[in-house]
Amino acid sequence: MAFHVLQKNREGGQQLAETLASAVAEVGLCQDCRTLTETARCRLCANGKRDDGLLCVVESPADIVAIEQAGGYSGRYFVLHGRLSPIDGVGPEELGLAQLLAKVRERKPEEVILATNPTVEGEATAFYVSDLIKDEVGSISRIAHGVPIGGELEYVDGGTIVHALQGRRRLS
Amino acid sequence: MAFHVLQKNREGGQQLAETLASAVAEVGLCQDCRTLTETARCRLCANGKRDDGLLCVVESPADIVAIEQAGGYSGRYFVLHGRLSPIDGVGPEELGLAQLLAKVRERKPEEVILATNPTVEGEATAFYVSDLIKDEVGSISRIAHGVPIGGELEYVDGGTIVHALQGRRRLS
Repeated sequence: MAFHVLQKNREGGQQLAETLASAVAEVGLCQDCRTLTETARCRLCANGKRDDGLLCVVESPADIVAIEQAGGYSGRYFVLHGRLSPIDGVGPEELGLAQLLAKVRERKPEEVILATNPTVEGEATAFYVSDLIKDEVGSISRIAHGVPIGGELEYVDGGTIVHALQGRRRLS
Repeated sequence: MAFHVLQKNREGGQQLAETLASAVAEVGLCQDCRTLTETARCRLCANGKRDDGLLCVVESPADIVAIEQAGGYSGRYFVLHGRLSPIDGVGPEELGLAQLLAKVRERKPEEVILATNPTVEGEATAFYVSDLIKDEVGSISRIAHGVPIGGELEYVDGGTIVHALQGRRRLS
């Protein structure tokens, strides 16, 4: 890309530099949910039609994009920008957990959905957040772990099979 | 492989041919759970220490291997050898559903776990089996669909995200 810009498209390079600089200067965090936005409050937080009773806690703004593209969820979000990882120096302060606690106390959502990733750190983070807010919220839930849609048991790892069996849902 | 056997390892080829022929001749279906076995009843069906209260319905013998390797399940199995697929001429007879119904009536398991794959045909098969045996069993359950362990929301397809949110489990 560097060679292409310098040899064949210097104008494009200049434009890219300006766009990047303005993005870095103008895109900040939503004061409400901490996702990336150019305004004080993001498009989703400013939308009065979203369900205030549901609050979904995710690791990154990209997770919000994925959930919104999937459709079916119409509640609010909160972005941690990472996961607890003491070895990398990421603790509760870096994840804005004080802000999350304040938000939960103020808005009183009926349910908080912990949608951190099903990795070791993601699970630990979900557990920590659950413990932090358990006295403030009626219901705290965790997204389902299991076999992905279109997947085949035969090609799925053992940990996922164990979770898929443990998390089985009653049909009748 | 064909060139290697014919040019460099004719003895190995002969041995492979004999092994394959004896496997084809001797490996049949377990009369109890329909998995592949050299004996009338397979090792798992003959094991008196397995939990008779749980019956797990899978699409193929490879699924049994995957679940056994994952560990954590100690019940019985039943293999469909496929899934309902009218377009390929696979109906209830081909899947041994009459045998499954007879087995459920005779053994009276407390719970039947439908572990067909989360594909369109797998879901339809689970629904059909559930409807077939619903008057014979106290509890019928479906394995969890969701984000696989170690997966990241950002890279998971929309259908799986929708299922992971719908199938969320209450923590408190």
